[in-house]
Amino acid sequence: METPELYLEDFTVGRRFETATFDVTAADIKAFASRFDPQPFHLDEDAARRSVFGGLAASGWHTAAITMRLLVTSRMRIPGGMVGLGGEVSWPRPTFAGDQLKVESEVLEAKRSRSKPDRGIVTLRHETKNQRGEVVQTAVVKIFVPARD
Amino acid sequence: METPELYLEDFTVGRRFETATFDVTAADIKAFASRFDPQPFHLDEDAARRSVFGGLAASGWHTAAITMRLLVTSRMRIPGGMVGLGGEVSWPRPTFAGDQLKVESEVLEAKRSRSKPDRGIVTLRHETKNQRGEVVQTAVVKIFVPARD
Repeated sequence: METPELYLEDFTVGRRFETATFDVTAADIKAFASRFDPQPFHLDEDAARRSVFGGLAASGWHTAAITMRLLVTSRMRIPGGMVGLGGEVSWPRPTFAGDQLKVESEVLEAKRSRSKPDRGIVTLRHETKNQRGEVVQTAVVKIFVPARD
Repeated sequence: METPELYLEDFTVGRRFETATFDVTAADIKAFASRFDPQPFHLDEDAARRSVFGGLAASGWHTAAITMRLLVTSRMRIPGGMVGLGGEVSWPRPTFAGDQLKVESEVLEAKRSRSKPDRGIVTLRHETKNQRGEVVQTAVVKIFVPARD
């Protein structure tokens, strides 16, 4: 059975969603970093141990990208796709090699557009947590969502 | 000649930096998307043409990752590395296949820590622009920077 698509009306304030999990490997961390954030603490275990992180840590942008993957492949399916306008991201602690991440989301606001009432903007808070339930990323983002009516 | 490293004292409000450029290919866009944002408008030219983007567009998180790459490999070298706490990201328009991106940065604030006066937090605005000078991403981020004195 396909998961039903979600429309603006389905994003009631306070509604919560949860994604599947994603296992972050050392190889993943290094591959992302070598392409997008080539700093020693993301590329090399020894350098990472001597750094502020104390161990091989993922780039914050890698945590953000994994969060997007978990959301896009989750049951929060939106007609036309998940298109973001931007948002606020913070990384209270690093993602380490061996971590298992998942995302818990909550609807903060859903606003129908006045000029184009067939759609609206939904504000969501996505908390990305590791296997110990510690938050590695908080993202408050705005996405476009079509209305059902 | 190595580029000198920048300390807290070097981040005077209003100081500007500019990175090199990065050419974004269709293959790059699809590779990132297949791993982190597998939606049709990031994966397939035909689907992208029929989408809200009108052409193969990079994931916003891909634009963010390319921005980080440009910053890390630029002359804005910080002792201990560029470690971010988070920030606010917005994507006023998409990055398309064939775009050439660069980042222009400006120091918005530099604040020495009261509890740990050997370091501080610098707030930067990074504007990522395409080859036509159009802004594809604005990011206001806070990073840790050690003090010289």
